[in-house]
Amino acid sequence: MKSLTEHLTFNVPSRVGFVNITESVRELVRKSGVREGLVLCNAMHITASVFINDEESGLKADYQRWLEHLAPHEPTSQYQHNRTGEDNADAHLKRQIMGREVVVAVSNGDLDFGPWEQIFYGEFDGRRAKRVLIKVIGE
Amino acid sequence: MKSLTEHLTFNVPSRVGFVNITESVRELVRKSGVREGLVLCNAMHITASVFINDEESGLKADYQRWLEHLAPHEPTSQYQHNRTGEDNADAHLKRQIMGREVVVAVSNGDLDFGPWEQIFYGEFDGRRAKRVLIKVIGE
Amino acid sequence: MKSLTEHLTFNVPSRVGFVNITESVRELVRKSGVREGLVLCNAMHITASVFINDEESGLKADYQRWLEHLAPHEPTSQYQHNRTGEDNADAHLKRQIMGREVVVAVSNGDLDFGPWEQIFYGEFDGRRAKRVLIKVIGE
Repeated sequence: MKSLTEHLTFNVPSRVGFVNITESVRELVRKSGVREGLVLCNAMHITASVFINDEESGLKADYQRWLEHLAPHEPTSQYQHNRTGEDNADAHLKRQIMGREVVVAVSNGDLDFGPWEQIFYGEFDGRRAKRVLIKVIGE
Repeated sequence: MKSLTEHLTFNVPSRVGFVNITESVRELVRKSGVREGLVLCNAMHITASVFINDEESGLKADYQRWLEHLAPHEPTSQYQHNRTGEDNADAHLKRQIMGREVVVAVSNGDLDFGPWEQIFYGEFDGRRAKRVLIKVIGE
Repeated sequence: MKSLTEHLTFNVPSRVGFVNITESVRELVRKSGVREGLVLCNAMHITASVFINDEESGLKADYQRWLEHLAPHEPTSQYQHNRTGEDNADAHLKRQIMGREVVVAVSNGDLDFGPWEQIFYGEFDGRRAKRVLIKVIGE
């Protein structure tokens, strides 16, 4: 069995943002030499997500508005977590909707994807460096 | 390490629907010859889900009503994504609640499941052929 | 390829509760002898979750209040599933928000975690024994 472990670092300049990481993951799959296996991509921080959806700017705006509706940032006093001095309780909630991780099949040495699948890093408490773990296993 | 990759195709005749795919996945696990490992089942389309829950018709109706409440289809003009000519922005949102994929343990050559676990394909923008990827790895 | 399969049993004394299972999972990873691989942790019941977030009591209270807002337990008559004699339809919904499973990278024989990542069992229909499956694969 082969394996490869790498970390990607992101510093999103706004509180909320989405970064397309598909090509970075694809390069790491190739670097791993794995032809058949799985690749795990997960946020290492608990106020961020890795998810798969569509590279379309209107949809990204829709996600942002919808998540703000389901788990509003303001008023920050509505969350007990924020009594610790944080203001990011909403980010912990939004991340559960969008998910921590994706597991993607590796077939013939590449991501085994449908026509529109793209991998995104979802940031809900940005303006600082945060990491994503990529782990490829297989043969 | 052994691996098996197969695709299942679904053409759900309505916009929203749930299809129990447990037996199809179980057959592919057996076909793979893997005794101990993992099986990944993921929607290859970004307006569909694979999830695990209960085979009970009332619950399936509850899911449908609840998802419509959290991410309504109408009015379609509320979503920026629909300005591209699509009317399926809500389906992209519903899929994030229900998830893209499941990873299931394979033990003794079978799905290692609790008493009520069943795997479903969740369609949120149907009336056309869409695919699910099944990838088994292990030994 | 090595593998290890174990089950953890929980009997949460209230309807809803969160149990930190990080150290139990870490011990099983060590027991497996796997240095590089993946560990799957999933609820075997469809009214429970395994998820990764922060060990902070305020946040756990926020999750509980937020999930109750998104998928209220009362009135139980609002759900078709409850006509079967159950009163736990809301638990099936809450579990979809929080997720069934996590897949965690194993690197150098340990959980490959960010600074605040902790694994939780999330119970939404407790007061009885329920199981979590831990499956480690790798080399």
